[in-house]
This record gives sequence, C-alpha cells and structure tokens, in this order.
Amino acid sequence: MSYPRFIGKVENSTVILSEEEFHHLKVKRLKEGDFFELNDLKGNIYLCKIEKISKNELKAYPIEKIHQKEEKLKIDLYLCIPNQLSKIDDLIPFLSELGVDKLIPVICKNSAIKQKQIEKKLKKWEKIALNSIKQCKRLYPLKIEPPKQLKDINPDSDIKFLFYEKEKEKTLKQFCDKKVDSISIFIGNEGGFKEEEVLFLEKKGFIPLSLGNLILKMETAVITAVANIKFCFED
Amino acid sequence: MSYPRFIGKVENSTVILSEEEFHHLKVKRLKEGDFFELNDLKGNIYLCKIEKISKNELKAYPIEKIHQKEEKLKIDLYLCIPNQLSKIDDLIPFLSELGVDKLIPVICKNSAIKQKQIEKKLKKWEKIALNSIKQCKRLYPLKIEPPKQLKDINPDSDIKFLFYEKEKEKTLKQFCDKKVDSISIFIGNEGGFKEEEVLFLEKKGFIPLSLGNLILKMETAVITAVANIKFCFED
Repeated sequence: MSYPRFIGKVENSTVILSEEEFHHLKVKRLKEGDFFELNDLKGNIYLCKIEKISKNELKAYPIEKIHQKEEKLKIDLYLCIPNQLSKIDDLIPFLSELGVDKLIPVICKNSAIKQKQIEKKLKKWEKIALNSIKQCKRLYPLKIEPPKQLKDINPDSDIKFLFYEKEKEKTLKQFCDKKVDSISIFIGNEGGFKEEEVLFLEKKGFIPLSLGNLILKMETAVITAVANIKFCFED
Repeated sequence: MSYPRFIGKVENSTVILSEEEFHHLKVKRLKEGDFFELNDLKGNIYLCKIEKISKNELKAYPIEKIHQKEEKLKIDLYLCIPNQLSKIDDLIPFLSELGVDKLIPVICKNSAIKQKQIEKKLKKWEKIALNSIKQCKRLYPLKIEPPKQLKDINPDSDIKFLFYEKEKEKTLKQFCDKKVDSISIFIGNEGGFKEEEVLFLEKKGFIPLSLGNLILKMETAVITAVANIKFCFED
C-alpha cells in the first residue's frame, strides 16, 4: 500500500502543513480516516492519519515513523549551463528521481548566459526539486548551488568524471570495480568543452570518459551518465 | 569537423531534397561551397557539396560516402501506453538518440487509451523519430509499430526483460556477462502491471528485473533501463 506524501512538520504531535501543501492534500480528495505520509525535511517520514478535514482546517496526527533508506552513493553533477535555461527546468525532475545529491550550474566558455540570469532561476529550480520529492519519495530535495565559473570549482569527491565527446578510449566500465561513496560528474553543454577547460579539469582530477559513439543531446547525456554511474557503482 | 545532416536521395549524382528538407537547409544558412551530409535512409551517408543555392533551387553533389557504424545491439522496447499520449512524443527523441531499434506501444490492463487513439498518433511519432535522426546521426529512424494488445506480443529476442517494481531480488547486473545481440525490454505505465500480466510475460520468456529502490516516473524508468541495458551489454 502506498500513501500520498506531503511536506510539512510535526509539532506537539500534530501535523502542520503550509497552505500550499494543504491545498495539494485537498486536491487528492483525502478525507477523515485516510492516511498520508509526511516528510519533515529533517530526515523523518511519518505515517499520519486525518482526524478531521474541512475547507480551511486539517487535524491530523502522526501514527508512526516510517523507515526510509538514504541514498548511499553521493552524486554531484557539474553542468555547463546551456543557453536555453528551460532545459534545466526539464532536467531537474530526472535528477531528483535518480537521486542526484547536488546540481552545480557552471559557467563555461560556451555558456552565453550571464551569472545573474542563472541566479534568477535558482528559486524556480529549487521549487521544482522540492515538488518532485513527494512523488519519487526522496528524503531530501536535490540541492542546487549558485552558479560558479569553471575555474572556481574544486570538488573533493572520491572520484571525478568528465564526459567528453573527444575522449574515445576510456569508458566508465573500466572503473566499476572501484569502491566509492561520492562521485562528481562534469558534463558540457551543446557547445562542448574547450580544450583548455578539459586540461584544467584534468588537473583538478577529473577523468575524461567517452559516453559511446552516439551523439547525445545534453539532456540525454546527463540522464544516461547518471543512470550508468548508479548502475556501475551501486550494489 | 561536423556537418549538418539532411535526409534525401542521390539520383544521377545529384542531391534531391524534399521541400521541407530544402527549407531546413536554408534555415541553416548554407551557401555555395558549403558541405552537408545526406542520409538516403538506405544505409548510405554522403558528404555533399553545394554548387548553387537560390531561394527555390539547390544544386548539390555527393563528394564521397561516409562510413558509419550501425548499432550492433538491437533493442526493442515494449511500452504499456500511458494515458497521456504526449509522454510518448517527449520520449521518442530520447529513444532515438539511445539507438533503440523498435518501439512497440502495448495496450495493457492499466491503459485507458483506445487502440484508435494510439493509431492516430503513429504518423506524428514517426515524424518525430525521423527528424531526430538528423541530429543524433543514426542511419535509420526508430521504427514504431502499430499498437498491440499485451496478449498478442511474442518477441524472439535473445533475451527479454520486464522491469517490474515488485521484483526486489533480480537485477540487470546479474546478466551483463551474457553475449546477446538482441534484447526486448518491457516497461509498464504509471498504473503498473497487473499480476496476471507479469505471469503471462514470464511465460513468454520475460525475466522480471528490479530497477532499484527509487520510484521512477515512466519516462525516467524507460531512459534509465535503455541506458543501463546498453551499458551492460555493449563492449
């Protein structure tokens, strides 16, 4: 049995929902005696029961805590910002579902977008990320960092990969036997990387990998890379 | 160096484009002396050169044949039709880029869509598939079959997988050492499979597999499954 999930908090053994979440709950037509799940964004999931619901008021109580496993593999995605920022809007639910921990928008040589334009989108992206955790039942939303210049990134993950269309030899398969807990992935935008960017990232410890012979759009490359990383390194 | 690719044919050593493809070529602002690639949908890719181009006329000649590897792994995707058919529109470019050979829309118990509604979409889906091969540089477009009832499917691939959320033990990883040339994948829609459907598909040779602990939307499940199948079985 699976119950709808909402985001809110528990205070004095009572469920407190924002107006927006209460609206979502009403849209689902939940009624007295129905159950739902509550994520308090502090790592707790509660099974809750509705005692009373009216147009303006909800009385609901946590019945029990639900155990939920956290993702063990920590994946950070560094993504050269595409010129069409709405592509990121569309990508976030995929990243969220696939359990990516952090998205770092990176301003690369081929990004024609200014830092301010990206910063304006952050609130919207965070909202998309937050909304998607209800359906995919993550504990915490995908974190989205403010945009960074490529020269300023310095990740400390156990292993770092750069998917690069000019790399023809090295593939992810050669690394699947390694035991790692945290991974950074770097993926370019449609314009691809400049050679000096690849050299810089190699110095920072990124290993250039091929994603195969196919020509993939940025979105497909990102989803494929994340899916394969999980397949490769998860038990 | 990468040239834009168009679909057309070569007759008497001259390039012939449809009006629509000629329009696309003009949109790319190609001019006399420029090169482009031509896919004749018969397995040939030509590098072509523009001798003359005006508003209404193109004179272009093939210079040489370009060798292009065909995908070795043949992946057929059986997909329970979601109730929102536009989800398939959005999925086709991904399937195309990832080299899926054939999409078979399947009417399952949880499909509320009628066969006729699906049939009406086939032309549009084929068009989306055809358009996407120019960018991703496939030789042939994704084939899209007319919809089938689940009870009528009978694939003869080397190996057949059914991704099923109630399967918790078996995973794709356990099969990656097998040598296979053709694979059928079956994926349900948001409503999931009925148990009798799973039993029927098991009798047809489908092996139920888990896609992990995450709750994935249909689109994410499909892309992840295809990406992982390729990763698992391709060299």
